[in-house]
Amino acid sequence: VSSRNIRIGLVGCGVVGTGVLDILHAHAGTIEKRLGARLVVEQIAVRNLNRKRAEIVPTELLTDDPLAVARNPNVDIVVEVMGGIEPAEQVLREALERGKHVVTANKALLAQRGREIFALARKYKRVVGFEASVCGAIPLIEGIARGLSGCDIKKVQGIVNGTTNYILYRMLEDRADFAKVLKDAQDKGLAERNPRFDIDGIDAMHKLCILTYICFGVWPDHKRVYAEGIRNISLADILYAEELGYRIKLLAIAHKENNILDLRVHPALVVLDHPLAEVDGAYNAAFLDTYPAGQLLFYGMGAGGVPTSSAVIADIINIGSGAGELPGGEEKALFKKSKDIKARYYLRCMAKDVPGVLAQITRIFSACNISIASVKQRERNKGQVVPVLMITHEVKEDNLRRAIGKIDKLPFIKGPSQVIRIEDL
Amino acid sequence: VSSRNIRIGLVGCGVVGTGVLDILHAHAGTIEKRLGARLVVEQIAVRNLNRKRAEIVPTELLTDDPLAVARNPNVDIVVEVMGGIEPAEQVLREALERGKHVVTANKALLAQRGREIFALARKYKRVVGFEASVCGAIPLIEGIARGLSGCDIKKVQGIVNGTTNYILYRMLEDRADFAKVLKDAQDKGLAERNPRFDIDGIDAMHKLCILTYICFGVWPDHKRVYAEGIRNISLADILYAEELGYRIKLLAIAHKENNILDLRVHPALVVLDHPLAEVDGAYNAAFLDTYPAGQLLFYGMGAGGVPTSSAVIADIINIGSGAGELPGGEEKALFKKSKDIKARYYLRCMAKDVPGVLAQITRIFSACNISIASVKQRERNKGQVVPVLMITHEVKEDNLRRAIGKIDKLPFIKGPSQVIRIEDL
Repeated sequence: VSSRNIRIGLVGCGVVGTGVLDILHAHAGTIEKRLGARLVVEQIAVRNLNRKRAEIVPTELLTDDPLAVARNPNVDIVVEVMGGIEPAEQVLREALERGKHVVTANKALLAQRGREIFALARKYKRVVGFEASVCGAIPLIEGIARGLSGCDIKKVQGIVNGTTNYILYRMLEDRADFAKVLKDAQDKGLAERNPRFDIDGIDAMHKLCILTYICFGVWPDHKRVYAEGIRNISLADILYAEELGYRIKLLAIAHKENNILDLRVHPALVVLDHPLAEVDGAYNAAFLDTYPAGQLLFYGMGAGGVPTSSAVIADIINIGSGAGELPGGEEKALFKKSKDIKARYYLRCMAKDVPGVLAQITRIFSACNISIASVKQRERNKGQVVPVLMITHEVKEDNLRRAIGKIDKLPFIKGPSQVIRIEDL
Repeated sequence: VSSRNIRIGLVGCGVVGTGVLDILHAHAGTIEKRLGARLVVEQIAVRNLNRKRAEIVPTELLTDDPLAVARNPNVDIVVEVMGGIEPAEQVLREALERGKHVVTANKALLAQRGREIFALARKYKRVVGFEASVCGAIPLIEGIARGLSGCDIKKVQGIVNGTTNYILYRMLEDRADFAKVLKDAQDKGLAERNPRFDIDGIDAMHKLCILTYICFGVWPDHKRVYAEGIRNISLADILYAEELGYRIKLLAIAHKENNILDLRVHPALVVLDHPLAEVDGAYNAAFLDTYPAGQLLFYGMGAGGVPTSSAVIADIINIGSGAGELPGGEEKALFKKSKDIKARYYLRCMAKDVPGVLAQITRIFSACNISIASVKQRERNKGQVVPVLMITHEVKEDNLRRAIGKIDKLPFIKGPSQVIRIEDL
C-alpha cells in the first residue's frame, strides 16, 4: 500500500530549517508509520543561493524567492523559519489565501501580526502551527490549547528567554557581573552580537503576546505591553536576593483577574523553593495557575535550533494527521492600568553610612503610603556608601516610584536606587 | 446562528463525573464559543439510582444500565469514569462499535486491555481520549503524543502516583514512619481504605503501561512489568538518603536503549537537585529525555476528582473539534531481561558493631563482582546493631541480589538488608 504524500515548502534554511530537514530524513520511517503519509520537501527558499549548505539540504529544491514557495501549487504546508516581519508575513498570508496550512517559529511576527494571521487562517479554514514560537522544545502551545482547553487559566509566569536566564544563572554561579557574562555568552554563541531583543525583554514580550492569545484568546497590542530587561540587574542584587531567600528571574507574566489582564515582562524576585527558581542555564519553563487543573509546570529547552526543529515537526505531523485549528477565536479583554498595579518590592538604596539615614528614608516612604516589611543595612562602613536593602509590603507601584524619586534626591543617596518586583507565586 | 450539539453520555457519576458536569455547566459559554458547538449531556449511568446526588446532576437523565449509554443512538461521545474492568470494557467496546468516540480515565482498564481497545478504535476510525488516565490534570498525553511527535523519546521517569508521593513526603517532613503516615492519609481521604493498588506500585505500573504506549507505541504485558511499592521504605532510609544527597521517590520508568525497553516501577534514590526530587506532596511529574527536544519536565496535580475532570473535558473538546486519533499505531519491541539490568544501588545492612564486620561484607561483595563506591557506618555503638550504608558503582542486579543473600546470612547481620536502586538522571 503506498501512502499519500504531504508536501512541505520550507521558507528559511538556517539552523532551524536544517534541523527540520535532518529530522524529516532521520525519522522518515517512523513519521510515515504514525501519519500514514510521507512528508516530502517540495521546495526550499533561502536568502543566498550561493552559500555553502549542509549535505542534508537538497540543492535542486532551492529558490531565493520565498513567495514562490507560498504560491507553489505543489506545496501543502508552508513552514516559515526565516524570521523577521517582511517578507515572512506575506509568505504566511499568501500561503493561507491559497488554502495551504502554515507552520511558523516566528514569535516577533506573531506578536505583531498574530491577530490578522489567525483571522485569515479562520477565514480559509486552515491551521497555523506555532508550537516552535514559544519555549522551543516544550510542547506548551499544545499543552495549553488542547490539554487545558477544559480549564480557566488564571495566571502564567514564564521563563521564556533562554539567553537572559543563562546570563542570570552564570552571574550567580560565577559571581560575575552582567557585562562579563554577556560577553562570554556572545563568544560562545549563546547570545547575539546585538543582544538587545533578548536582554531588554523584547523577545520575552513577543512570547508573552502569544501566550496571552493561547491562554486568554486575546491578542494584546505588543507596543503597550510592559517590557523591562536585565541590563540593570547587578551581581550585588542577585546575591542580596539569595540572602533574602529569593532568586532573580526574567519573567513574562500574564495574569487575569476580574476579566482584567495584567501583562508584563520584567526581572522579579521569586522565592527559592518555587519550581521557577530552579530553572537554570538556558532552560525555559512556564508555570500556570488554573482552575480546576491547579498549578502546572512545563520545563524544557527553550531556544536553540535543533530542539526548536522538533516543535516544527510536531506541528507538521499534527496538521498532517488532520488535527485542525487549535481551539481559539478571539476574546475581548481589558488591560490593567499601571496605576492599579500593586505588588511587593525589593529595594536597594546606596546610602552614605551616616546617622539618620534610615529615619529620613522611612519618613518619605511613610508619607507616600509605602509600608516596609523589612530593612537590612548589610554592611557598616562609617562615612562610606553602603547598600540599604528593603522589602515592602504590597504597595501601589505609583506611590513607590514617587517615593524612590524623592529618596534618590536625598544628599546622602548615591546613584539611582534599584527597584525589583517580588513575584508571589 | 444556532450551533450544533455534541451529545455526551456519561458512564459513572462519582467525583470525576460530577466534576465533569460542574465544568460543563460553569464553562458552557466558553466551550461553545471555542468549539462552535454545544456540549449536551444526554444520559448518565450510575450504580445506584437512589443515592442522593449533587444538585448539578440532572436526575431525569439517570439510568443504572451503563450499556444503555453505550448503545444510545443519541450519544456522540461516551465518557467512561466508572472505573473497574467490567462492565467498563464492554461500555467502551460497544460505544466504539457503534461509531461513538470514547473518553476514559480508567488506567487499570487501559493497562490491561489497551491494545484491544485502541485496535477497535482504529478499526472504526474513532478516537479514544485518555488524557485523564495518567497524571490527572497534567496534559501529558497530549504533550507527548502531539507535542513531541517529532521526537524520539529515550526515557520517561514519572512520579505518577500522588498517594505514595504524599506518603514519602510526609514521612520526611514529619519524621514519621510509614504506618503512621499511611493511617493519617487514610483518615484524610488521601489514601484508600484498601491502599494496596497505590502503595504496592500497581496503580503506577498501570500508568507506566499507558506511558509506554504513548512514548514507544508498545502495549507491554502488564503482568510482566516489574512493580515494587513503598511498604518497605523506612524513615531511616529516607533520612540516610537525604544525608547522602538523595531523595527517595516511587518512580515509574520506561527506558528504551538499542530498541530494548526497560520498564519498572520501584522506589529510587534521585539526586536532590533533580527536578523530580522537588515534587512534593500529592503532586505528579514526568521527566522525559528525548531527541532532539532534550530534557523536559511536566508537573502538576495528579489524582483528585476535580483536576482529573479538566482532563476529561479537554478530551471532549479535542474530539469535538475534530482532533482525530493521536498519532500512534503499534510497534514491536523487546523487553529488558532482569539479568541484564545494571544500576547503582543504595544498601543498608543492619550489623552488630563488632570488629571485622566491614571486612566480611566487602569480601562477599568482591567475590560477587560488586564494586562499592562508598561505605558509611553511621553510628558507632559497640556491640549494638547499627546501620552500615553503602553505595555501589554500576553493578548487575543479579550479582547484587546474590551478594545480599549471602550477607543476610552472616551471624552479625540482623534482619533483611535494604536495597534501593539509584536512578541516574
